[in-house]
Amino acid sequence: MPQHTPDAAAAEPGPVPDVFAWIDDAERARERAGLVRTLRPRPASSPLLDLASNDYLGLSRHPETVRGAREAAERWGAGATGSRLVTGTTELHAELERELADFCGFEAALVLSSGYAANLAAVTALSDRGTLVVSDAGNHASIVDGCRLSRAETAVVPHADVAGARKTLAAHTGRALLVSDSVFSVDGDAAPLTGYAAACREQGAALIVDDAHGLGVLGEGGRGALHAAGLAGAPGVVATLTLSKSLGSQGGAVLGPAKVIRHLINTARTFIFDTGLAPAAAGAALASLRLLRSEPERAGLAREVAAALYGRLTASGLTAARPDAAVVSVRAPSAPAALRWAADCREAGLSVGCFRPPSVPDGVSRLRLTARADLTGDEIDRAVETILRTAPAGATDR
Amino acid sequence: MPQHTPDAAAAEPGPVPDVFAWIDDAERARERAGLVRTLRPRPASSPLLDLASNDYLGLSRHPETVRGAREAAERWGAGATGSRLVTGTTELHAELERELADFCGFEAALVLSSGYAANLAAVTALSDRGTLVVSDAGNHASIVDGCRLSRAETAVVPHADVAGARKTLAAHTGRALLVSDSVFSVDGDAAPLTGYAAACREQGAALIVDDAHGLGVLGEGGRGALHAAGLAGAPGVVATLTLSKSLGSQGGAVLGPAKVIRHLINTARTFIFDTGLAPAAAGAALASLRLLRSEPERAGLAREVAAALYGRLTASGLTAARPDAAVVSVRAPSAPAALRWAADCREAGLSVGCFRPPSVPDGVSRLRLTARADLTGDEIDRAVETILRTAPAGATDR
Ligand SMILES: Cc1ncc(COP(=O)(O)O)c(C=O)c1O
Ligand SMILES: Cc1ncc(COP(=O)(O)O)c(C=O)c1O
Repeated sequence: MPQHTPDAAAAEPGPVPDVFAWIDDAERARERAGLVRTLRPRPASSPLLDLASNDYLGLSRHPETVRGAREAAERWGAGATGSRLVTGTTELHAELERELADFCGFEAALVLSSGYAANLAAVTALSDRGTLVVSDAGNHASIVDGCRLSRAETAVVPHADVAGARKTLAAHTGRALLVSDSVFSVDGDAAPLTGYAAACREQGAALIVDDAHGLGVLGEGGRGALHAAGLAGAPGVVATLTLSKSLGSQGGAVLGPAKVIRHLINTARTFIFDTGLAPAAAGAALASLRLLRSEPERAGLAREVAAALYGRLTASGLTAARPDAAVVSVRAPSAPAALRWAADCREAGLSVGCFRPPSVPDGVSRLRLTARADLTGDEIDRAVETILRTAPAGATDR
Repeated sequence: MPQHTPDAAAAEPGPVPDVFAWIDDAERARERAGLVRTLRPRPASSPLLDLASNDYLGLSRHPETVRGAREAAERWGAGATGSRLVTGTTELHAELERELADFCGFEAALVLSSGYAANLAAVTALSDRGTLVVSDAGNHASIVDGCRLSRAETAVVPHADVAGARKTLAAHTGRALLVSDSVFSVDGDAAPLTGYAAACREQGAALIVDDAHGLGVLGEGGRGALHAAGLAGAPGVVATLTLSKSLGSQGGAVLGPAKVIRHLINTARTFIFDTGLAPAAAGAALASLRLLRSEPERAGLAREVAAALYGRLTASGLTAARPDAAVVSVRAPSAPAALRWAADCREAGLSVGCFRPPSVPDGVSRLRLTARADLTGDEIDRAVETILRTAPAGATDR
């Protein structure tokens, strides 16, 4: 009795091959390169000193901000229930938009579900097939994705190269826009906004600035990098924001001339086809914004803490970029060394960010420290002492 | 004294030309076409009967869901404070992921800040330059944008055409994936998931299904369309979800084999470079999920309400697509007629959705009604009566 004739075997369905087998190879490659990322859930009250979050003003747990979240959820429900064009716009969203625009010095604002969505919306809705989008090489992933999603031609210019941007704009006829972070998330350096704006004016281009790391930290009372540069509300200038950093909440926004906002409402896919921001997030951001107004000293405090961290770490021989806002970026000799350094800090009770390829534009791994306005002198001492004590060989220049 | 010599005039900077002048033309074109969209902020307690939101189970204002939001904000703060790879993952996010995966029948889950971000993440991270992505022509904008953002070749196949999808897959050598909504948001029809899954198995392709409108409505107790089709947890199958519809909150998720989730954690840009979902949104979604478990009848109720609306409207001569879930789509004779119809309903106290170009794939404008599980018999009567009374000439077939 032939049990396994070739024919019978062929008729039996074989084991289904794993369509995700390629992931095994990708995982092995990540392991070999020491670049595996895993999630590390934190408890509600962490014993760690936080120099890793983007909660620059320490507002995410401020009683007023939390109350804003709670009261909004109770009053408006847990979700927006639909696209903002259908049922997802509440009077709370409108209020937040008015106060954001007013605080930052723009005519109008539009709130989206994240800063990522705001950048996708601004770049795609303000460009078309004939547009040239000039993008700083250091721009955030969400801007890069906005460029990819747009139908426009994108020209990536070297980081902070005003002359290069101007030349690229000059070589193009037709609509153009220049897009840049205001403060770059990896190194914490500020963009040459005045130069970029002059190049745009000269060449008839629009300027989009992502002020994710400037809001709450730069400008009078934290009104942001564009306000600081005298560019808030200027014709041809659009800002994108996130509500998830200095405002301690979640969400994003686009600020600009009223007609730009109307155009986004009518055409931006990440606005139209996305559920509105949850009321709790809108309420928390609004409460934080009001705290910024009533306690305008917070912004300067964050900058002072950053300057103190930078001063003390570099005085001890570490290499860091001079912080223009609240991010202090310290160079590590290699990706594994950066990882170990961050782990040693954590072991010693200090949470710091660790940026490695592919999240760094130049291949240089870094510790990323964020200065919070509410860090005490003792906490700064402890942070500096811990970072120096755990520094790997090759991190200091002495 | 020549005051305005040509030279002096040339030296003066002229008025800066408006770089956004093109928006004026776009606005005029929208006005001519009757396609201007504006935001209409709603008050906290609207007098309107809601058949427009995606709050299918009526949970966004359920006391338990709101309590989930409130308690999470109080315990964890108003924001996640960073990327989930840095400080943005809490034990609350991990708990939500475990319960989502378990409820829907998948090995693992990853929560993102929106369903939009979840679709961008899944499509881009599971494809590369050599991959063929086969996309149903009716897919949601976020899937379309995921295809555009990916480096893959995209083949759009006719809506619900299993044979076409199989043929397109068969013509490709190398990695492939098929991506489809489970329930299409405009017409409310279900995708041929069994056929799509068979084609994928046969052709060695992965299947990504966006169950935004299936979760909470389809499958045993609302476990979703993939669970209903016996495909939950199947090898090669990935689901994307939103927490903003049946769960009444905000956020999105990807569900699938653990290694797919690990791969997303390591490579998906809308996960890595985005602030984690706000604790309040995670807490609300978790509370809703537990309500679904303890009150499994909600899903069936939503479907029954949809069937009742459909039955009564078509019996009176309106043209509608038979609802496979909780969306009832009613044809309007034209875009202006649809707009007026929706406005007349609103005038009469009923809020309905209105889909017009460019949000409709086929150019046909529609009223979009959503069946909520918590609509009463009286409310259904009132809705049907209002829609029929305000129907424009040409909407009924008699
Ligand atoms: C410069 C910059 N832009 C945009 C974003 C995205 O904002 P969100 O996290 O609100 O999506 C981030 C970080 O998350 C950022 O650093
Ligand atoms: C089918 C589908 N997928 C994804 C989304 C996006 O989900 P979210 O609103 O959570 O971003 C929506 C609607 O918003 C949708 O209808």
